[in-house]
Amino acid sequence: MAVYTEVGDDELKAFLARYDVGPLLSFKGIAEGVENTNYLVHTGAGSFILTLYERRVERADLPFFLGLLEHLGARGIACPNPVRARDGEVLGEIAGKPAALVSYLEGVWVRRPGPQHCRALGAALAGLHRAGSDFALRRANALGPAAWAGLARATTPSADSVAPGLAGEIASELDAFAAGWPSALPNGIIHADLFPDNVFFIDGRISGLIDFYFACDDAYAYDIAICLNAWCFEADAAFNITKARQLLHAYESVRPLAAEEYSALPLLARGASMRFLLTRLYDWLNTPPTALVRPKDPMEYVRKLRFHRSVASAAEYGLDVRH
Amino acid sequence: MAVYTEVGDDELKAFLARYDVGPLLSFKGIAEGVENTNYLVHTGAGSFILTLYERRVERADLPFFLGLLEHLGARGIACPNPVRARDGEVLGEIAGKPAALVSYLEGVWVRRPGPQHCRALGAALAGLHRAGSDFALRRANALGPAAWAGLARATTPSADSVAPGLAGEIASELDAFAAGWPSALPNGIIHADLFPDNVFFIDGRISGLIDFYFACDDAYAYDIAICLNAWCFEADAAFNITKARQLLHAYESVRPLAAEEYSALPLLARGASMRFLLTRLYDWLNTPPTALVRPKDPMEYVRKLRFHRSVASAAEYGLDVRH
Repeated sequence: MAVYTEVGDDELKAFLARYDVGPLLSFKGIAEGVENTNYLVHTGAGSFILTLYERRVERADLPFFLGLLEHLGARGIACPNPVRARDGEVLGEIAGKPAALVSYLEGVWVRRPGPQHCRALGAALAGLHRAGSDFALRRANALGPAAWAGLARATTPSADSVAPGLAGEIASELDAFAAGWPSALPNGIIHADLFPDNVFFIDGRISGLIDFYFACDDAYAYDIAICLNAWCFEADAAFNITKARQLLHAYESVRPLAAEEYSALPLLARGASMRFLLTRLYDWLNTPPTALVRPKDPMEYVRKLRFHRSVASAAEYGLDVRH
Repeated sequence: MAVYTEVGDDELKAFLARYDVGPLLSFKGIAEGVENTNYLVHTGAGSFILTLYERRVERADLPFFLGLLEHLGARGIACPNPVRARDGEVLGEIAGKPAALVSYLEGVWVRRPGPQHCRALGAALAGLHRAGSDFALRRANALGPAAWAGLARATTPSADSVAPGLAGEIASELDAFAAGWPSALPNGIIHADLFPDNVFFIDGRISGLIDFYFACDDAYAYDIAICLNAWCFEADAAFNITKARQLLHAYESVRPLAAEEYSALPLLARGASMRFLLTRLYDWLNTPPTALVRPKDPMEYVRKLRFHRSVASAAEYGLDVRH
């Protein structure tokens, strides 16, 4: 949570002059977004978010991300809508960084999601998968299984300093994925980072989904697995099957799971745990103490991984037994 | 610039339930305010700032600060207006911290103030001094001359590591203040921290003054001296007499200076330099490298202090010679 790049008043006015958004009234750097710098901007036309894309976002990916937001918005998904400049461009530059102006979404993210929030999430996730299914652009998952070996290598020398035996546990999981990772599941655009802080609610209903900067092509069920991890564990690491059941049933009310998705879910959930375990472990070992962002605890995801390893079938996530 | 205290959705809703501001729509921690945590809050009734008072603000001072904002607002000064809860209280508590909800002021602070901004500032400062003159509460300047000896003692052992001879230079200045600091100048409520980032502009006109958490009783001319330092030096440390003349003439168009204020101005400007030199030096020497806030360079104020020591009379600030 940080403002990495300071924007001045004159340069913001010059930037906004390219848009039909009325005069600049105020702007504040906001303490959200680990990857990018975000300003909340008030103009004569309303509220907007100005995002400056920092080093972790590839410039070549920006047409995909901004195009996806426009595509989803046109299909009724409440997500930030890129504002086009008068020349038709959605991508600009400010303070030497690529930048875009998007609509501001009202809503509040829920610090302690309950079963009813998980139900709303499940339906929204399936709706997102449906809405993205005819998006023309493609983007490989840069943090998918193919990337894990490299992250494991980079963290192996110090992993055991975080928890004894962790390097070995990671290696053995990667072997299991190499042997059994499903390659032909229903797939398309996934959000890939739909944690509670990326889902806004007003009055118990979802008012918006944000932060699509990990979106990519991958298995839909893998996106579900990411959400199970992010929404259905308690602070004490206990899995909450009531929340998971709500999430999964609501998802299936919009997009039923195929038999192979059902059977792959426990392994996908182990993989989804590995992805966040590895990036958190990497950041844990490589974030200087002077950094503006504090690294998150990788052990949270080690515990989730171990839980999923103990799961025999998707029935243990609250889905009906079938097939 | 940091969010020191995280506020959750449920606790903010409970807090706002005490106010007639409609439903919570969204809130974002904003990267402004070195002393306090600030959230920009959107509700059904509009935009507000929620301020959580952190350790550097004395709880006993809050009735003074909040009462002053109400007093100034009632006299037409554009400043944050505290929102009263239904029970009439302006001070509440959230996340274990004293907190207040104030109106949001549109406007943008000017990164590179020009002479026209200094002119607007001068008139606004004098208007502020007039508007505060009948405020009933009193607060001593906690960072006035009486506090400097203590700050000097705390920084003396390491001051020369910042600049050779700095400890001696500070001691000799304090001797000069002890011998000649004026004690009977026109005085009343001063802002005491009216830097450019605390003055909002829209279309070249001041739309608001913020951050009154150093406000206190002191000499009006000392407040002017703080502003000369904050607004009228260039990045290369050169004093810009054009800006100073605009500031001072505009001030005098609202509240003319008395003869003794005119003659005291150079010494007051040295003192105003000392105040920021000492607090910056203290922070420079005592901020851990892991802190969220980066300390500001104390040497900027050493250079300003030296400039004012070379000034023989207020005429050198652009005021007409008189008396």
